[in-house]
Amino acid sequence: MNADKLKTLLEDIRCGRTTVDEGMALLKGLSYLDLGCAKLDTHRELRVGYPEVIFCPGKTTEQVKIIFQAMLERNSNILATRAGEALFKEIRQICPEAVYYPLAGTITVSKTRMETPDSYIAVVTAGTSDLPVAEEAAVTAELFGNRVERIVDVGVAGVHRLFDKLDVIRGAKVIVVAAGMEGALPSLVGGLVDKPVIAVPTSVGYGASFKGLAALLSMLNSCAGGVCVVNIDNGFGAGYMASMINKLR
Amino acid sequence: MNADKLKTLLEDIRCGRTTVDEGMALLKGLSYLDLGCAKLDTHRELRVGYPEVIFCPGKTTEQVKIIFQAMLERNSNILATRAGEALFKEIRQICPEAVYYPLAGTITVSKTRMETPDSYIAVVTAGTSDLPVAEEAAVTAELFGNRVERIVDVGVAGVHRLFDKLDVIRGAKVIVVAAGMEGALPSLVGGLVDKPVIAVPTSVGYGASFKGLAALLSMLNSCAGGVCVVNIDNGFGAGYMASMINKLR
Amino acid sequence: MNADKLKTLLEDIRCGRTTVDEGMALLKGLSYLDLGCAKLDTHRELRVGYPEVIFCPGKTTEQVKIIFQAMLERNSNILATRAGEALFKEIRQICPEAVYYPLAGTITVSKTRMETPDSYIAVVTAGTSDLPVAEEAAVTAELFGNRVERIVDVGVAGVHRLFDKLDVIRGAKVIVVAAGMEGALPSLVGGLVDKPVIAVPTSVGYGASFKGLAALLSMLNSCAGGVCVVNIDNGFGAGYMASMINKLR
Amino acid sequence: MNADKLKTLLEDIRCGRTTVDEGMALLKGLSYLDLGCAKLDTHRELRVGYPEVIFCPGKTTEQVKIIFQAMLERNSNILATRAGEALFKEIRQICPEAVYYPLAGTITVSKTRMETPDSYIAVVTAGTSDLPVAEEAAVTAELFGNRVERIVDVGVAGVHRLFDKLDVIRGAKVIVVAAGMEGALPSLVGGLVDKPVIAVPTSVGYGASFKGLAALLSMLNSCAGGVCVVNIDNGFGAGYMASMINKLR
Amino acid sequence: MNADKLKTLLEDIRCGRTTVDEGMALLKGLSYLDLGCAKLDTHRELRVGYPEVIFCPGKTTEQVKIIFQAMLERNSNILATRAGEALFKEIRQICPEAVYYPLAGTITVSKTRMETPDSYIAVVTAGTSDLPVAEEAAVTAELFGNRVERIVDVGVAGVHRLFDKLDVIRGAKVIVVAAGMEGALPSLVGGLVDKPVIAVPTSVGYGASFKGLAALLSMLNSCAGGVCVVNIDNGFGAGYMASMINKLR
Amino acid sequence: MNADKLKTLLEDIRCGRTTVDEGMALLKGLSYLDLGCAKLDTHRELRVGYPEVIFCPGKTTEQVKIIFQAMLERNSNILATRAGEALFKEIRQICPEAVYYPLAGTITVSKTRMETPDSYIAVVTAGTSDLPVAEEAAVTAELFGNRVERIVDVGVAGVHRLFDKLDVIRGAKVIVVAAGMEGALPSLVGGLVDKPVIAVPTSVGYGASFKGLAALLSMLNSCAGGVCVVNIDNGFGAGYMASMINKLR
Amino acid sequence: MNADKLKTLLEDIRCGRTTVDEGMALLKGLSYLDLGCAKLDTHRELRVGYPEVIFCPGKTTEQVKIIFQAMLERNSNILATRAGEALFKEIRQICPEAVYYPLAGTITVSKTRMETPDSYIAVVTAGTSDLPVAEEAAVTAELFGNRVERIVDVGVAGVHRLFDKLDVIRGAKVIVVAAGMEGALPSLVGGLVDKPVIAVPTSVGYGASFKGLAALLSMLNSCAGGVCVVNIDNGFGAGYMASMINKLR
Amino acid sequence: MNADKLKTLLEDIRCGRTTVDEGMALLKGLSYLDLGCAKLDTHRELRVGYPEVIFCPGKTTEQVKIIFQAMLERNSNILATRAGEALFKEIRQICPEAVYYPLAGTITVSKTRMETPDSYIAVVTAGTSDLPVAEEAAVTAELFGNRVERIVDVGVAGVHRLFDKLDVIRGAKVIVVAAGMEGALPSLVGGLVDKPVIAVPTSVGYGASFKGLAALLSMLNSCAGGVCVVNIDNGFGAGYMASMINKLR
Repeated sequence: MNADKLKTLLEDIRCGRTTVDEGMALLKGLSYLDLGCAKLDTHRELRVGYPEVIFCPGKTTEQVKIIFQAMLERNSNILATRAGEALFKEIRQICPEAVYYPLAGTITVSKTRMETPDSYIAVVTAGTSDLPVAEEAAVTAELFGNRVERIVDVGVAGVHRLFDKLDVIRGAKVIVVAAGMEGALPSLVGGLVDKPVIAVPTSVGYGASFKGLAALLSMLNSCAGGVCVVNIDNGFGAGYMASMINKLR
Repeated sequence: MNADKLKTLLEDIRCGRTTVDEGMALLKGLSYLDLGCAKLDTHRELRVGYPEVIFCPGKTTEQVKIIFQAMLERNSNILATRAGEALFKEIRQICPEAVYYPLAGTITVSKTRMETPDSYIAVVTAGTSDLPVAEEAAVTAELFGNRVERIVDVGVAGVHRLFDKLDVIRGAKVIVVAAGMEGALPSLVGGLVDKPVIAVPTSVGYGASFKGLAALLSMLNSCAGGVCVVNIDNGFGAGYMASMINKLR
Repeated sequence: MNADKLKTLLEDIRCGRTTVDEGMALLKGLSYLDLGCAKLDTHRELRVGYPEVIFCPGKTTEQVKIIFQAMLERNSNILATRAGEALFKEIRQICPEAVYYPLAGTITVSKTRMETPDSYIAVVTAGTSDLPVAEEAAVTAELFGNRVERIVDVGVAGVHRLFDKLDVIRGAKVIVVAAGMEGALPSLVGGLVDKPVIAVPTSVGYGASFKGLAALLSMLNSCAGGVCVVNIDNGFGAGYMASMINKLR
Repeated sequence: MNADKLKTLLEDIRCGRTTVDEGMALLKGLSYLDLGCAKLDTHRELRVGYPEVIFCPGKTTEQVKIIFQAMLERNSNILATRAGEALFKEIRQICPEAVYYPLAGTITVSKTRMETPDSYIAVVTAGTSDLPVAEEAAVTAELFGNRVERIVDVGVAGVHRLFDKLDVIRGAKVIVVAAGMEGALPSLVGGLVDKPVIAVPTSVGYGASFKGLAALLSMLNSCAGGVCVVNIDNGFGAGYMASMINKLR
Repeated sequence: MNADKLKTLLEDIRCGRTTVDEGMALLKGLSYLDLGCAKLDTHRELRVGYPEVIFCPGKTTEQVKIIFQAMLERNSNILATRAGEALFKEIRQICPEAVYYPLAGTITVSKTRMETPDSYIAVVTAGTSDLPVAEEAAVTAELFGNRVERIVDVGVAGVHRLFDKLDVIRGAKVIVVAAGMEGALPSLVGGLVDKPVIAVPTSVGYGASFKGLAALLSMLNSCAGGVCVVNIDNGFGAGYMASMINKLR
Repeated sequence: MNADKLKTLLEDIRCGRTTVDEGMALLKGLSYLDLGCAKLDTHRELRVGYPEVIFCPGKTTEQVKIIFQAMLERNSNILATRAGEALFKEIRQICPEAVYYPLAGTITVSKTRMETPDSYIAVVTAGTSDLPVAEEAAVTAELFGNRVERIVDVGVAGVHRLFDKLDVIRGAKVIVVAAGMEGALPSLVGGLVDKPVIAVPTSVGYGASFKGLAALLSMLNSCAGGVCVVNIDNGFGAGYMASMINKLR
Repeated sequence: MNADKLKTLLEDIRCGRTTVDEGMALLKGLSYLDLGCAKLDTHRELRVGYPEVIFCPGKTTEQVKIIFQAMLERNSNILATRAGEALFKEIRQICPEAVYYPLAGTITVSKTRMETPDSYIAVVTAGTSDLPVAEEAAVTAELFGNRVERIVDVGVAGVHRLFDKLDVIRGAKVIVVAAGMEGALPSLVGGLVDKPVIAVPTSVGYGASFKGLAALLSMLNSCAGGVCVVNIDNGFGAGYMASMINKLR
Repeated sequence: MNADKLKTLLEDIRCGRTTVDEGMALLKGLSYLDLGCAKLDTHRELRVGYPEVIFCPGKTTEQVKIIFQAMLERNSNILATRAGEALFKEIRQICPEAVYYPLAGTITVSKTRMETPDSYIAVVTAGTSDLPVAEEAAVTAELFGNRVERIVDVGVAGVHRLFDKLDVIRGAKVIVVAAGMEGALPSLVGGLVDKPVIAVPTSVGYGASFKGLAALLSMLNSCAGGVCVVNIDNGFGAGYMASMINKLR
């Protein structure tokens, strides 16, 4: 909105050509809740379609509880990622209906079931050690109201396992692929399907994997089209992106 | 397909319970054209929905021409990326209808107009210097049958330029954001819209931009959800991914 | 401005309790000029106190000229950085009063002399090879209306040269120090003065200088207080920051 | 001071044309206190305006106590950074008036209130997890006699939170911005204000944040002017620099 | 197999020109065992000559036990790498004949003695600290049915120790060389023998060894021919590769 | 040979118990030819089975010619790598039978046909742009007396092309796989064959390929066994290693 | 020794023209002691002038004890670096005269006082936190028979402390300078003295110090001549090198 | 010199207890020549024993000539490094006695023969391609009055070439070793001699040599004692350091 348009709008309001409510709609009231240690973005669900998510590392238990409490009071669905079991025990004190996924390290509270499309998301892992990251993606997508199909341990070292599951992968609307070490699986999947592939490098590996850097670079350089990448171990980000795509019409 | 199922299938064929054509469908005949220096993946369009794309660097002019010729004979749409003007002049000799986009460095041949959805793709650039990468994305998406809206030079240093264009960005089904230097724009856009954002780091910058590394890392660490990343300067990959998402139903 | 305040404001306008002009002031009309390949941030000078600056690399000559022309028409002071001599010759066609600083690679047009404070900026270089970067800083600061004292070639290998110039350095309100190779000079200066030091690593060096990375890391790890850092070879950024500090009251 | 000038000075002293005190002033007696494991720079406050600061990591508790004791005896204000609670308990034994800031990990002793200017410093954090670094900056600036305004959790993922606080940010004389992950906030702030911005990358993040490297590179490549950068997690350095600028006249 | 050939094959089966078994052989029944958290590649031994190997890090104890159990039921030889003593104690509960090599951190179960060639593998270490990695290689090769000669602590700092052992090294069919720090030993060995050298960089070292990066780069840049490299600390990979070569005819 | 053994040997020679020739054999006369700018390792063929190879970069044309001349006089087979066409023209002046492979950038002189085993080497490339590196490997292996089968452009983006060529790959005794970009092909091949795979990362790619680093890391982290790696673009090293393995009995 | 010379030597021995002892001297009997897990280089003192040194990390306590025992039996001076207090307690069981330097983490046994030159070594540290590394250098040099002068905490942030100690630094024959953070001190010292400076980067610092990388790069890029560098935290290497230079005549 | 001592000195001068000349000696008149673009450190030879050296990259031809002219007028020996042939032609105009070493890229002017010790410096290269760097070292050392023995092309791939030259290497007082690729030669030499070794990594290599980084890291991690390192390709630094050591008494 440039200056001229704004002036016109305000004059329209003054003259009654535009109601205050219409002005509100145009200027979109952005709001948040100030918690001292954090500003809860209460407008977020309206703006981007999802509630705020609590990234736990670097926050004290006290801070996480304050944010949790504020969201509970607003009756939000809640997703807290990278939470240890000890933190969960504290949260359960103030929120008995909180659920903990130990493999994913995720706490969720589901107040309202989000609308679920017919299509589903495939979450594929190259190896068993990639499961924590993949589960973070799957739990995120499920909380946001998506059906998820999990395909486990189909890495390129035994590629027939992948081909055997190709139908369920091809049937998805969007595919999340988590892989560590050389991170080759997303390229392979990308060359076999006609659906968007969200690649999640994991920090599984050692030595020259450099905590997931090898997989990350591999995925960024995918020779197959239709592959995009999120941060190392960012299961949440992959699940969120997949949910967004799965809900597109 | 595991061993048991395969055996059953073959026995069904032998017994006539399954026709050869049905077997074909199940075993999916994958095919290609051997050009000596390359194997043209003629099955690709069937499999992933798009024709093969010619990535020109590292190929001799002769090799590019051989591949081009083979695709022309198959009446394919053609997309050649990272092509210089000299290469284009050679190609025009064998294909007068080829079109060159100098800013994007892209050659296209459009034999059949691909089906175009009603929704559109927004291609956003942080600065004027990011235009070549953004144009590669836009030209790719257009060749693949998408409507593209370009939003130029709305980087975070003058954020009101972005807000003024927010409506056209929010109206898209999927958003490509190309940015160099600190690569902050995709995070900002991701926090303002409820659509998938494909972030393309560009190598625009100097010093500690390390040829786009700064922007790449910035985008991978986006604190906003719904942002995924392709390789540095990979306009093609972003346009391809965006097309794939835009065509989802 | 949160939703409540906004509603009150709009209602005040509607009721005449607030004039449209007062609303304008509060909502601050942000504006720009759309040039097709760029959006000239005409509001910028009002907002941050300086006109937009043209970073030339990655822009075509045509694009730079369009932006130049638009700024000329608005009678702005102009600063174009990283410009080669060939580009300057093109610019001089459309703007005979443009001045070129070959060492700094900078084009300037000075339409209105900016207000100049009494205090001055010291621009210090470790070696002769750091001069281009230092000159970019000095020319920037001068165009923005600052007095600059240049102190050349006083690197740590012959530290008595620095001590001999300490008075003029200490007399400045803010100090820019450009150094390549090991980048030790800002730490040394930082330990000797009670003024802010803006360190500019330069890409001068070879081998394990990694194009300025060594100097950059050195400066970021300065054991002296009061040292902050800009990007490698970013003379413009240092001059801009120094100007901003020098004009503080 | 070159050789000739020095000879003249000494001859002037010999001849009585210059008094010994004047010579002293010119040659500036630099001094320190030798503690065995450290040399306390007692001249520092005179030279650069601030007392020495104790960086605790890598020092034994015994060594920190020796330095503390020596500073106490000289009645200095004391600032010890990166101190754990256990170390603080030891220090309190020898200095009951020492104060500990657990979030910042800082121990301070305030013997003389430093002169406080009217202007203030804004300390801005992108997220709750950046608070420890931001607090180190704030505590440092306050000990050095500055008024500090804290603005918490206004990162780019919910940019309206920032706009709501823009007035208090714009009112500051100098702004410290601490951000992890993609580190985009300083660029955004830099594009909105006409005051120097000191960007502090934090190690908040995971994966390709590489312990703050992503945020660091992002900030160094800021497309907005007036942004300079200190080391990752260097809240102290940012607070020190901000204090230096805030006290400029 | 392209589409035409496949069609012909299926028609041949239908007509009885090819038996189902022959079709099986051509289409090679690939199979695996689904364990929920993993897909045991039971076809692997047939396909690449070796059973699957359990890489323990990132797997829960429960998951390792499930995989172990499944392999025991199939009477496979088992190799589990990077296993701690605690994990071994759990495994011994379900498999009393499991053997633990504490230096190598390896658990093995030997059900069937693999065929052993006459030739042997030399496993050479630069220093005593490289032994764990070298032992992982040796234990792997021995389980796979190879004779191994160990040559310990013959690094380049005392090169006569190497020359004294040159006969046993030259007598091998393939040589594994494990070295940390500067990783020079494989180059030296490569220049002295006419056998393939498999270089294993180890993470032994400190500072600019960057956890084995220095040795890795050194080995990749070997000026001697006949040297190839596996991942840092990847003793298993080196032993596996050496076994594969040693068994070639 | 330790001190005692040496003393015994020398005394045996003195006493006539050992002949001088036997002593020679034991002490292995190592020799070379001093060319001023280089020391031609004439003993090399005896020691490691292959003649010395001329790596051209960094050598002046004059120096290459001197080494060439010396090898010609000794009637050696000659292999010069990374040679441009201009250098070849100079060489042809002094050696008309020299052959140039422009794709590989290799000059060879074949004086004596080396013994050729029945088994063959497969040289596999992921894409057309990887051909120069693959050809360097193939030409090297052929000059050293090996049969080579080339399999071109079978990268993971169209994996059916690989499966169609699996027979010829599986039939080889050792396999060289050259791949750029994400470098996934060696892992895939390694999971499908029971032969040693020598992976050659190529610098094909852009952006976050970092001139082959992505492919290199990918290959080092291969989840498939039996894969080892040589330097980026090191076709020669791969061909040399493959030859060494192919000739093992 | 080339083949011809060797043949002549052996024939001379056979003919009695050369005695066996002379042959021994020429062929230099190299020897070592095989301890199973290590080969003690007993010839080393003869060859390079210093006994072997035990680098403890990565060795089991048992292995260190075996090596210690073997050296004790040979009556060697012993130097074990990077030893923790627990290890020392084990060593003292088998060697009561062993001495532990807790700051340096070094165990020494001094059997024979090595010859001490008149000249001395200066060991300079930038800060108190650099003391452990500096002490490793000093203890090493002293055990090897050198006089050491320690100059502590004279970093560039308070450069007058350095100038006050310049006489003792200039009086040394060789200077070791240990510094972390930005690592500027060796450059400064190198520009002030005419003696060789051995720079030791330390891992003191945080953030963009990257565990000593910043200091390392800084020192490698020193603009002052006469500065060479050892590995990060390699106090031993610096002390060894300094001893070697101090003992030159 | 601390404050008290300084005061005493000045009072002594005033009272005549100390002469002005004695004061001069104590306060050491540091001086330089201001050339505008550079400050010629004329005091340097007195202070560190060597004249200033001109590092040409990044300086304009005009600037180099100004510095050259000033040194000629002071009758200094001159050393200009990294000079191209074109620059030399310009210099020869103003200084006909200048000598150019094309391999080293060095210009020298020898006005006064520096004192030459009896001992010599060995300059060793791993390969022919390392000669330019080694020559820079040798020319530097010779200009500074040292005897140099060159040992060329004795890298670890053919280690007998090194052993044949061990006598001349062992006879030197200090040894410079230049090596690219894996940089193993300094470690090997360091394990064979009892003299200081100055290792110079060169940028010879490709791929994962990363322009000399592999060799640099290798040398920094040398397992042999008595090895220190200078910057990549820094032949000058190595020759300077070697000269300094060779001239020690």
